[in-house]
Amino acid sequence: MPSFKITLAYDGAAFSGWQAQPGRRTVQGELERAWLEITGETVRLNAAGRTDAGVHAAGQVVSVESTTTIPPESLVPALNSKLPEDAAVQLVECVADGFHATHDAKFKRYRYTIYNDARRPVFCRNYAWHIPTPLDVVSMQVGGAHMVGTHDFASFQSVGSERDSTVRTIFAVDILSPAAPGSARGSARPPTTLGPNDLRNAPRAEPGAAIITIDVEGDGFLYNMVRTIAGTLVEVGRGKRPPEWVAEVIAAKDRCAAGQTAPPHGLCLQWVAY
Amino acid sequence: MPSFKITLAYDGAAFSGWQAQPGRRTVQGELERAWLEITGETVRLNAAGRTDAGVHAAGQVVSVESTTTIPPESLVPALNSKLPEDAAVQLVECVADGFHATHDAKFKRYRYTIYNDARRPVFCRNYAWHIPTPLDVVSMQVGGAHMVGTHDFASFQSVGSERDSTVRTIFAVDILSPAAPGSARGSARPPTTLGPNDLRNAPRAEPGAAIITIDVEGDGFLYNMVRTIAGTLVEVGRGKRPPEWVAEVIAAKDRCAAGQTAPPHGLCLQWVAY
Repeated sequence: MPSFKITLAYDGAAFSGWQAQPGRRTVQGELERAWLEITGETVRLNAAGRTDAGVHAAGQVVSVESTTTIPPESLVPALNSKLPEDAAVQLVECVADGFHATHDAKFKRYRYTIYNDARRPVFCRNYAWHIPTPLDVVSMQVGGAHMVGTHDFASFQSVGSERDSTVRTIFAVDILSPAAPGSARGSARPPTTLGPNDLRNAPRAEPGAAIITIDVEGDGFLYNMVRTIAGTLVEVGRGKRPPEWVAEVIAAKDRCAAGQTAPPHGLCLQWVAY
Repeated sequence: MPSFKITLAYDGAAFSGWQAQPGRRTVQGELERAWLEITGETVRLNAAGRTDAGVHAAGQVVSVESTTTIPPESLVPALNSKLPEDAAVQLVECVADGFHATHDAKFKRYRYTIYNDARRPVFCRNYAWHIPTPLDVVSMQVGGAHMVGTHDFASFQSVGSERDSTVRTIFAVDILSPAAPGSARGSARPPTTLGPNDLRNAPRAEPGAAIITIDVEGDGFLYNMVRTIAGTLVEVGRGKRPPEWVAEVIAAKDRCAAGQTAPPHGLCLQWVAY
């Protein structure tokens, strides 16, 4: 059956995550309803990343099999007219039959945002983890470099996931902040070679505040992996652990070895490459 | 009576503006309630800028006369514990008796933000005016330069204001966008000499999108003046009027000569200097 690829942004604050659940307001539920209203077809959508409640997406990719004759460029405004204001279709493309947004994803980039300021946040309250005490960003960058490469990330997987293998390849851990400008030491390639459409998501900053962004790019991610990476790097940034501790956490292959799971609202799926 | 100066940020999306109104959720109402709960005093607060519904503040300044013995640094967390999450006290200072946030303000800077992208916004939907067709930013900068200086801004005042004089001095009209980097031609001084605490408010950008910011700094503003300046400059940016038309609008001293009043949610009070 013909397939469509939908690129979608959403503010996760008021959604119970991507995945459709009875009685809950979910992104999948809203988009499937919009698709039905526009095309008359009841479909099941597949997403590249099944984001949790509170998690945002700047460039989520969704696939759908459909026989609709509506041109893709017309589907964008049509679907948006049926979507709530906190979700927006950016692009619809015809793709090869059998395209599957989840299984065909080659790599993805997530951004974890930290608001590192003593003042209470207003504008980024739904988009960043508030840490009032100053973090040592350079130590976080050195720590993050240990994650780049192919490793068994079992220590960074929350209970509840059902992956066969916990080996993943991380291409880059780019940690940026006004206090430590330039590309992070943990980066395996320059942040200018980002990916399709350069779907970077500028942090929603408080005025004059220190925003720290942790971008993690990899070929796949375990459940809560980026949030656990962020929580682990924050332990390093707080000075509670040295940067080398990150290598020990990886080697332990034990979730208890890593730092806390950072809260969901700091996370954003930036883009997916196929 | 001893006076306190409060610096305050708020997300205006869910407020019916600054000014207290019966039965409405206003910033003044919330802050006066918080002050009462913390100090036991019923006070009347004065704000530097009485922002309308939907308008944001990164550095609103509020004055209050009070005999409280609570130290200013303790008032910050105490007041914040009583405020909703879309308003936050940043700083409380003891100031000279008789300080009045409205009357003593020397100059203010407002920022008007435009999301100039064909895609529907998600993250900046409450913080920027969405204009899908590309604007000519250089023309807007040339047009904005005509506003710098001391002029009668009667053309830029909405009905409903009660100012004696409509003469104001505009120090800078700084128009920035990724498409036209660098300081705007309309600026009378470099944007690095901003003001107290450098309370600039980074735009909450969509990924890869063109954000245009219009910063207007002046010794005072008429009712809806910045929004009318933004609406007028957008006429120029759309190519409907030449940049020189802005001088004609000023000379006309007639509200009907100017462009539309831009929507409130793109506006943010950045800071106030005393």
